[in-house]
Amino acid sequence: MIITDAWKEERPVLRGLDEAGSISMVQRGLALRKQIETILDDFWNEGFDGIWFIGIGGTYASCMQAAVFAKSRTAMPVYCENAAEFLTTGNKRFTDKAIVIFSSESGNTKEMVQLAECIKEKGARTLAFIDTPGSTLTQDGLCTHVIISRKNEQIKFFLCMSYLMYRNGDFAEYEDYWQNMEAYLPQALVQVEKESDAWARAYAEKKAEQLQKRPDLPHYFVAAGNQYGAAYSYGMCYWEEQLWIRTRVVSCPEFFHGMQEVIEKDTPVTLYIGEDEQRPLAERVARFLPKVCANYAIIDTKEFALEGIKPQYRQFISHLVMHAVNNRVDAYLEYYLRHPMTIRRYYRQFEY
Amino acid sequence: MIITDAWKEERPVLRGLDEAGSISMVQRGLALRKQIETILDDFWNEGFDGIWFIGIGGTYASCMQAAVFAKSRTAMPVYCENAAEFLTTGNKRFTDKAIVIFSSESGNTKEMVQLAECIKEKGARTLAFIDTPGSTLTQDGLCTHVIISRKNEQIKFFLCMSYLMYRNGDFAEYEDYWQNMEAYLPQALVQVEKESDAWARAYAEKKAEQLQKRPDLPHYFVAAGNQYGAAYSYGMCYWEEQLWIRTRVVSCPEFFHGMQEVIEKDTPVTLYIGEDEQRPLAERVARFLPKVCANYAIIDTKEFALEGIKPQYRQFISHLVMHAVNNRVDAYLEYYLRHPMTIRRYYRQFEY
Repeated sequence: MIITDAWKEERPVLRGLDEAGSISMVQRGLALRKQIETILDDFWNEGFDGIWFIGIGGTYASCMQAAVFAKSRTAMPVYCENAAEFLTTGNKRFTDKAIVIFSSESGNTKEMVQLAECIKEKGARTLAFIDTPGSTLTQDGLCTHVIISRKNEQIKFFLCMSYLMYRNGDFAEYEDYWQNMEAYLPQALVQVEKESDAWARAYAEKKAEQLQKRPDLPHYFVAAGNQYGAAYSYGMCYWEEQLWIRTRVVSCPEFFHGMQEVIEKDTPVTLYIGEDEQRPLAERVARFLPKVCANYAIIDTKEFALEGIKPQYRQFISHLVMHAVNNRVDAYLEYYLRHPMTIRRYYRQFEY
Repeated sequence: MIITDAWKEERPVLRGLDEAGSISMVQRGLALRKQIETILDDFWNEGFDGIWFIGIGGTYASCMQAAVFAKSRTAMPVYCENAAEFLTTGNKRFTDKAIVIFSSESGNTKEMVQLAECIKEKGARTLAFIDTPGSTLTQDGLCTHVIISRKNEQIKFFLCMSYLMYRNGDFAEYEDYWQNMEAYLPQALVQVEKESDAWARAYAEKKAEQLQKRPDLPHYFVAAGNQYGAAYSYGMCYWEEQLWIRTRVVSCPEFFHGMQEVIEKDTPVTLYIGEDEQRPLAERVARFLPKVCANYAIIDTKEFALEGIKPQYRQFISHLVMHAVNNRVDAYLEYYLRHPMTIRRYYRQFEY
């Protein structure tokens, strides 16, 4: 690069670690607790016949995480649906006694606006988390309940699910759990960003080099349990959408039923190991990988201190830990690839 | 290639169209109807509180197809679970009143054997479709009900689901539907193989050429509705597992929430358009693709005659039509790639 003196101070973007910003962001999510409880108390008192998490793209992935948490712990009917599929195929189990929980960052995502209209028409209740004030989905009367607050989608969903389970007698530790989170989670996640920063830099630099050599090769993400939704969203909404890197995300059990055959020595694979009930499924992949691959990375949430978080609660935040690590990976990828994560080739660029 | 005279008669494998074999295979599947009805009548009379389709890999994909068919048509609780996830996370809605339906070709798939043991322990009923006589899963007492019969997994599951829906008053056309299938389906599917043969040859030849030029580039499969499970299984169990070709399968709605950004002019994409309620989701992809990609293929089941099949039933067999097309694609890929589809790099080659 040859740069004349007048421009030599210009630098590519490298997002540093914003400690205060990260902490206050997570605190803001946790602070929604009372507001959420009040709404859900109403739902509880009125009664309901199903809890429906519905999303599209990244928000659908967050629905998966709420659903997998609930599955082993409550017999309440919890549904995880893709908005576009719900709008076409529908679901005959859906009634006007349903409660729908969803999230939208822009507040005007096509499918989610249609969904809100569809739910309204069916006469069911909606708790919508919207990041953007003044957007379509915040309009009066479209959703029965709206909470406007930026970020923390996973915490919001988890607050909802865990509170309904608490009311149903399925999550007795609710108060203690959230008090523990309020006291330690914001700081613990920032600490993860710090602890993983150097690793993330090396990982991103290596990735950028590999993309120079073999730009066509997809990157494989393998994960299970609450990490699966996290990897699904990370591979698709961050690497594909925001960084234009090819990916293929697979769940740990499915990895062994087809996908494994395309893994060779140089195939880039990142395995996420979390701490919930599906951890053994990820450990099986970790034992297999070294035998056939020399280009894999493993992020095991167990390796992070998470100071103050009670051991029995670590499993519930594995996906948040992974998200913190990936925050740093993203910052360095954006830098090494000189690819601003805000740009899109096609998304919302023209009608389709 | 230089070949001495003694060996010049040796030829690579090119599987021709086995008309009689294909017809009798489908007939064999359809002929299971009475046997299945008898078992399900018992289940019906004894009562049940949930219908659980559980699978892994390709059989999990077939579960998805049964579930998406049921979703819009019945309010009975139908579950679609991955066996390994069920074995670790579990599901608190599962009780001893559940009925479990699954399939296994080998009859000894690790996860499915563990699943059968787990179901047995929980005291629930199982209808297991096993392809291989004498295999572990056919052993006395492991599953409450076993039907040994090769192939036709999707027809078997669909027979089960549609009969239970019929008994529940959700599929009044049951008798007429299956009579229509018995009369015309086997021949109609063979006809699809014939009609698509030349197309499949050209498609496979082009794919083989592209793999020479850009071997790292994944092939993208996009599908919705009952075609999604079909594409999921095809991309993973056929191309990845049996042909060692990189793939990335995405559902039509999710295509627009991230994945679309990595599509460029030369990216290979195959879109499956079926005829069920989610057809509009696939049509949206078909309208988008030509704007950004010059290397896509579309298989639209609507283009096939399916002689004798009543128009209103076409939607239920879109995934079978696609399977017939892909039978021919596979035969030619095996030939052009000189890759016998029976070989595996790792699967069942060593302990992992």
